Amino acid sequence: MTKWVYNFGGGSAEGKTGLKNLLGGKGANLAEMANLGLPVPPGFTLTTEVCTAFYDNDKSYPTELTDQVEASLKALETQAGKGFGEKSNPLLVSVRSGARASMPGMMDTVLNLGLNDETAEGLAALSGDRRFALDSYRRFITMYSNVVLGMHHHTFEDILENYKDDHGYMLDTELTAEDWAALIVDYKLAVKNKLGRDFPQDPKEQLWGAIDAVFGSWMNDRAIVYRRLQDIPASWGTAVTVQAMVFGNMGETSATGVAFTRDPSTGANSYYGEFLINAQGEDVVAGIRTPQTLTKVAREEMGDIEPSMEEALPEVYGQLAAVFDKLESHYRDMQDIEFTVERGKLWMLQTRTGKRTARAALKIAVDMAQNGMITQDEAIMRVEPSSLDQLLHPTLDPDAPRDIIATGLPASPGAAIGTVVFSSDEAEVLAKGGQKVILVRVETSPEDIHGMHAAEAIVTARGGMTSHAAVVARGMGTPCVSGAGQIRIDYDAQEFTVMGRTVKAGETITVDGASGQVLAGEAKMIQPEMSGDFATLMAWADAKRTLRVRTNAETPLDVQTAKDFGAEGIGLCRTEHMFFEASRLGYFREMILAEDEPGRRAALDKILPVQRDDFAAIFRIMGDLPCTIRLLDPPLHEFLPHGEDDVKAVAEATGLPVGDLMARARELDETNPMLGHRGCRLGISYPEIYEMQARAILEAQVLVGKETGKMPIAEIMIPLVSVAKELEILAEKIAAVANEVEGDPKYVIGTMIELPRAALRAGDIAKTAEFFSFGTNDLTQTTFGLSRDDAGRFLPDYVAQGILDKDPFVTLDQNGVGDLIEIAEQRGRATRKGMKMGICGEHGGDPASIRFCHNAGLNYVSCSPYRVPIARLAAAQAAISKN
Amino acid sequence: MTKWVYNFGGGSAEGKTGLKNLLGGKGANLAEMANLGLPVPPGFTLTTEVCTAFYDNDKSYPTELTDQVEASLKALETQAGKGFGEKSNPLLVSVRSGARASMPGMMDTVLNLGLNDETAEGLAALSGDRRFALDSYRRFITMYSNVVLGMHHHTFEDILENYKDDHGYMLDTELTAEDWAALIVDYKLAVKNKLGRDFPQDPKEQLWGAIDAVFGSWMNDRAIVYRRLQDIPASWGTAVTVQAMVFGNMGETSATGVAFTRDPSTGANSYYGEFLINAQGEDVVAGIRTPQTLTKVAREEMGDIEPSMEEALPEVYGQLAAVFDKLESHYRDMQDIEFTVERGKLWMLQTRTGKRTARAALKIAVDMAQNGMITQDEAIMRVEPSSLDQLLHPTLDPDAPRDIIATGLPASPGAAIGTVVFSSDEAEVLAKGGQKVILVRVETSPEDIHGMHAAEAIVTARGGMTSHAAVVARGMGTPCVSGAGQIRIDYDAQEFTVMGRTVKAGETITVDGASGQVLAGEAKMIQPEMSGDFATLMAWADAKRTLRVRTNAETPLDVQTAKDFGAEGIGLCRTEHMFFEASRLGYFREMILAEDEPGRRAALDKILPVQRDDFAAIFRIMGDLPCTIRLLDPPLHEFLPHGEDDVKAVAEATGLPVGDLMARARELDETNPMLGHRGCRLGISYPEIYEMQARAILEAQVLVGKETGKMPIAEIMIPLVSVAKELEILAEKIAAVANEVEGDPKYVIGTMIELPRAALRAGDIAKTAEFFSFGTNDLTQTTFGLSRDDAGRFLPDYVAQGILDKDPFVTLDQNGVGDLIEIAEQRGRATRKGMKMGICGEHGGDPASIRFCHNAGLNYVSCSPYRVPIARLAAAQAAISKN
Repeated sequence: MTKWVYNFGGGSAEGKTGLKNLLGGKGANLAEMANLGLPVPPGFTLTTEVCTAFYDNDKSYPTELTDQVEASLKALETQAGKGFGEKSNPLLVSVRSGARASMPGMMDTVLNLGLNDETAEGLAALSGDRRFALDSYRRFITMYSNVVLGMHHHTFEDILENYKDDHGYMLDTELTAEDWAALIVDYKLAVKNKLGRDFPQDPKEQLWGAIDAVFGSWMNDRAIVYRRLQDIPASWGTAVTVQAMVFGNMGETSATGVAFTRDPSTGANSYYGEFLINAQGEDVVAGIRTPQTLTKVAREEMGDIEPSMEEALPEVYGQLAAVFDKLESHYRDMQDIEFTVERGKLWMLQTRTGKRTARAALKIAVDMAQNGMITQDEAIMRVEPSSLDQLLHPTLDPDAPRDIIATGLPASPGAAIGTVVFSSDEAEVLAKGGQKVILVRVETSPEDIHGMHAAEAIVTARGGMTSHAAVVARGMGTPCVSGAGQIRIDYDAQEFTVMGRTVKAGETITVDGASGQVLAGEAKMIQPEMSGDFATLMAWADAKRTLRVRTNAETPLDVQTAKDFGAEGIGLCRTEHMFFEASRLGYFREMILAEDEPGRRAALDKILPVQRDDFAAIFRIMGDLPCTIRLLDPPLHEFLPHGEDDVKAVAEATGLPVGDLMARARELDETNPMLGHRGCRLGISYPEIYEMQARAILEAQVLVGKETGKMPIAEIMIPLVSVAKELEILAEKIAAVANEVEGDPKYVIGTMIELPRAALRAGDIAKTAEFFSFGTNDLTQTTFGLSRDDAGRFLPDYVAQGILDKDPFVTLDQNGVGDLIEIAEQRGRATRKGMKMGICGEHGGDPASIRFCHNAGLNYVSCSPYRVPIARLAAAQAAISKN
Repeated sequence: MTKWVYNFGGGSAEGKTGLKNLLGGKGANLAEMANLGLPVPPGFTLTTEVCTAFYDNDKSYPTELTDQVEASLKALETQAGKGFGEKSNPLLVSVRSGARASMPGMMDTVLNLGLNDETAEGLAALSGDRRFALDSYRRFITMYSNVVLGMHHHTFEDILENYKDDHGYMLDTELTAEDWAALIVDYKLAVKNKLGRDFPQDPKEQLWGAIDAVFGSWMNDRAIVYRRLQDIPASWGTAVTVQAMVFGNMGETSATGVAFTRDPSTGANSYYGEFLINAQGEDVVAGIRTPQTLTKVAREEMGDIEPSMEEALPEVYGQLAAVFDKLESHYRDMQDIEFTVERGKLWMLQTRTGKRTARAALKIAVDMAQNGMITQDEAIMRVEPSSLDQLLHPTLDPDAPRDIIATGLPASPGAAIGTVVFSSDEAEVLAKGGQKVILVRVETSPEDIHGMHAAEAIVTARGGMTSHAAVVARGMGTPCVSGAGQIRIDYDAQEFTVMGRTVKAGETITVDGASGQVLAGEAKMIQPEMSGDFATLMAWADAKRTLRVRTNAETPLDVQTAKDFGAEGIGLCRTEHMFFEASRLGYFREMILAEDEPGRRAALDKILPVQRDDFAAIFRIMGDLPCTIRLLDPPLHEFLPHGEDDVKAVAEATGLPVGDLMARARELDETNPMLGHRGCRLGISYPEIYEMQARAILEAQVLVGKETGKMPIAEIMIPLVSVAKELEILAEKIAAVANEVEGDPKYVIGTMIELPRAALRAGDIAKTAEFFSFGTNDLTQTTFGLSRDDAGRFLPDYVAQGILDKDPFVTLDQNGVGDLIEIAEQRGRATRKGMKMGICGEHGGDPASIRFCHNAGLNYVSCSPYRVPIARLAAAQAAISKN
């Protein structure tokens, strides 16, 4: 019989961390903490398999489930020493979701379950605090009616507001037990009026209703969006944990809080967190009350007045600190913890590996490895390569003047410039249109996920360092300033005011998530410095990886940047980019318009010296690192003006005849330029172009070789080969040029494998090609029969519908395109043993694709300069994972 | 030591037919005839390996060649009883090319070699006919100077014309021996003036010059063009045969002729040929004198006055007829023969398997098989499948009125309509522009090949049934009327006159190659009748083949035609063609412009009944044969007007708003439509389109099922799948529609494999797909990364340069695209055992591609209606070849 329910509590548990896939992160870690002897309120977890079965069987449960839940409930009653629905000593429970991966705020939760008219009075008697008991009951009715019964929470808020108005109350705290009792009557009436039946009084009915709702919330819209953004498969499902309630809101010796065992923003090795006295957990996370700090040091740093937990509840704080140390050394990683203090007793409600910024991830990994807590390999595996992106981009210049308009909490580091928007929908629309936007909200909620994703940075007027905005922004690597309390936002007027200044939607501001500052206008940025931790981790990574990392670059600036970031050569120098510069475009157009080969050669002769200078500049920077230079690739019409106006302008500027330009542009126009007269097909039709380029490369090589005493390493790459003979013909022509160039230039010749046929015929092609570079952009286009320029219309929908797991232009399609790469690798190396192979599509900077390249036995990946460090780290992770 | 030279003559030879690759067709067959004891003038053949070595080694010969030629020349002198360069008894030789495949008129020949000032006089004494000897010498000087020395033959013609004018001669026959002697002096002077050296007198020097020239002519322009058109590789090379001369021009008992052992035009089992008394062989082929018939029956049929050979030279004719029978039964095929009669003695100069029309090929194959000369399998292999095309096309309606303007010889059967052109260059240009042209020439020469290829039909004023025009046209399957002597062509005025009528370039005429008639204007055509031989051979073929043959068709006319031609089902019904009809295009555009799904559904509801009628019509014709119907494939913008004027016209006609049409057309515009939002991607985005089409198919099926009592077999095909999930989603939607249609429709669902990724993921896709149809047009485009629409700019050059053997859109690229097909076949059938697979690209009608499909284990090919018989025959040949 399948075990659908796992119990925990009282120093032991049926589950453990290793069962995370089955029990969800929350359930598994609660079990683990129970096993560690930490104070965990008892409870039980319904497995993720229940969720899967639920959706597979038309939303009905496995038949054995009822009995297993009944048995676990019995065990829980025994553990807690209370009875579910027992008037004198009622057991109250929370019902929470918990998936394999954390999805904060995405799914539903019900607290205080088990309260009804009778048990509420029992709780009142037991706690000696009737107001607390009835407040809990009315909170339960609100939450349950919303989550389980589908009513809007405004209904209950309106009743409460009206009641407060009628009685002249301003704050909730002014209401007495009798007021809550009266409101509870009104609340229940509202439910009956709306749904035609009474609010359920039977705790068992309440429990099953809540379980249904939590499993149901796995498929709500925001959970679906979140999973898509975070690449979480729907098939994983969620577990449901039912746990005895403990109360942080039972007076001044009660409290609730969230904490990290280290600073998740900087990685500093000091406790970090927030708590609220006399509050329930949701109050901290929702960001409605501004919480207090955990430690005295933190309070002093923030300049807070309210005492820290260390000062307010020193004994419990001591217990908590001990738990922090125990958990961190047990899990060997920074923990994100929720706790509650009920009348002086500490209860642990959750622990999990904490989300952190890239900077913190780096520091924590390096610190832990240097302290011997983890190995260097583990440290390498702990940092998500693509998160490095945050560290490599510009930050605000500390010396430049700052026009500060507001200051809040430094919730997520990084700096960004953008125009102000006040709604997530608008943020998404404008960002799709290419605009950089800053989302400014009073506070954010799970409904804002799409806008936060679209924004360059987020500013909120309310909420702490663990508010929704802060947690989500850090996870996304988006800069965030939260709790900028001076800001007054007027959504209707589409503006915010702060200290007498007004900023309207559409105005530009700068956000500095590292300092918590919001600045007017565009502030000055500076290039990032590669910090000590970064250098340390990269050195470990470089020692581990076997895959080389090169760069795709052609301007001296990009080449230099890439080299500074550790590029070990150029994997793709796109020579056509050089022709788009105004000085040469004219000559190149002259070449295109020439009537015959001598005319084309005359025009190319004028380009030769500048091309030679281009290559010499690159060789000088790269020294003795290999440089793969691709000969002209795009179709000639890309260099001609389109449309009558453009043609006229170009004709005027260049003196080329309008008629000729028009005629040639029309003549060269193509139905499917992606599949047209380009790449080596141009080289075959107009060999003089490739001959000029080869000459420029080889002459530059000799030139720089003489200057430096060391011959640069040139790898000449022929694009778009589909038939071996194309390469043979062109290789011969280049060899003839090389024979003519004085100074004995050395080069190797290779090809892009970017068409399915080239991959299939790799064995033939390798007879001439001395290296392969997989052009995975075009290979993806042709393998899928999918134009990248046109795919925007339906590709996002394909990913949303799960037809494709990921955008194949971002992460390599291993099953299809990858299959061709493996075929080419095998067939190529069957002809030419140990042949050098790399990848130069944009996938060269994508960690998952880099792992594939490592496993496929390629020698290098090549990516844009800013992705070079990412690729270095990803390559090291691939090497470690494979061992 | 390599044997470079093979001797023959005197009843034996070193070569034989089996050595055709080495000795060329001519050399091998001369050897074979010598071995058969037939009267062959002795000689020797320099092998094709000499040619290959010649071109591989910078046009120099193997070192041993000189000695081997010397030895063979000695043997030849002995055989002939004459001496090379021996004044009193000179040996004269011909030097001819001879490749593995016949290339009539494409390469050079030198006759009468060995003549010089001394041997000419020796020949005069020996023959007792000085005029003959000197005429031969002046012919030799002309030919040798042209072919070997590179002088223009006009030089010699001008000298001759001037001489005739000066002496008042009209005809060459009026010139005496003395006249020729004087002219020879002038000829030799012209050579010396032009080249600065004397015409070579040394026969050995003459011989090597001629050998050089013949090997050199392998690479002349017209040989290169011919090889490209006929798919003959340059690497084959030509052999050179040196053979003792015999003379058909030694008086009234001498003659020369060409013959076929059966009628190469109709296939009738009767000797067929032409001869000229007192002439050299070139005179017959060149078409300058109109030759006489071979047999009495033929003379009577043609209504000729000149006696036939049977009547003029009855004894030699009897010997010749015996040779015909011996050769045909030896070679077991119709032979094409050249012979010469020298003073009453028959000499055989050539035999080879004769070219024939498709009709003749069919009849000969069937006759020979029925007579037991060859097997049925051999008969099937004897007919080139694509030649059947000639038999399947319309011919002139015999009952319609004919406006006959000229009559000539029925040189190549078939009828064609086109506009008159007078030059081959112009014919080529106009044909490329899509015009159908008829090439009208006084006579054709090898320089006209490109124009003959471009023309629908050929008319010549001069020349017989074996003239250049006739032979080449029959080989090409192009209708031809030759020797229409009443026609007077004025090239300058660009017109011809005939019996007082003038026809100008650009006017339309009709050519009936079967009757030899040229008609004014456009004559009425009728559909071909499938003759008895055709039916017989096809029945043999059908019994042999295992590959089924279906058709690509959607109109009732095409479907019916295909069925009449033996199609065993529809392999591809392109439903989009149905939407282009005016009546539905409006609704379809309404659908495209609709703002939401209900709007689209409303428009589609209007198309449903007409679509249902479309399918019902097809089902009624096809009965219980399977019909594969492909759902909508092209991108939506193909259905919208382009350009402002078009949009306005459509807006007016349909009442759709101009602005909406413009906006939507712009919105739908694509950079690479081939790789865009089309095929099943449309089905995913707008499921309502595919649902409507599926409903129309299934409702039509039920409808016709009720009418006929037999449920038609519908195979619904989803295009452009690249990911298995696309098919899964759409298959489910179609299943839902099927559930709603009353009458229990039956269908299977499958997909096109037309993208490389689909081929690679065939294992996944076969979980849902019940059949695969390889869409090799798109698969070729994506595998090569080559747009068919754009390839025209460079693809012909690729074939010309040998980068590609053949146009991959005509003949399947077996190494690349074929590899993907084999991968898909294996992976698909690994998932679904015995899965049905076919091909529906245009390659389905190409014999070489059909052979590949057979070998790859596919179940069927599908092709256009007129190619169905071709495919049936090719499939049978594939089955026979594989055994």
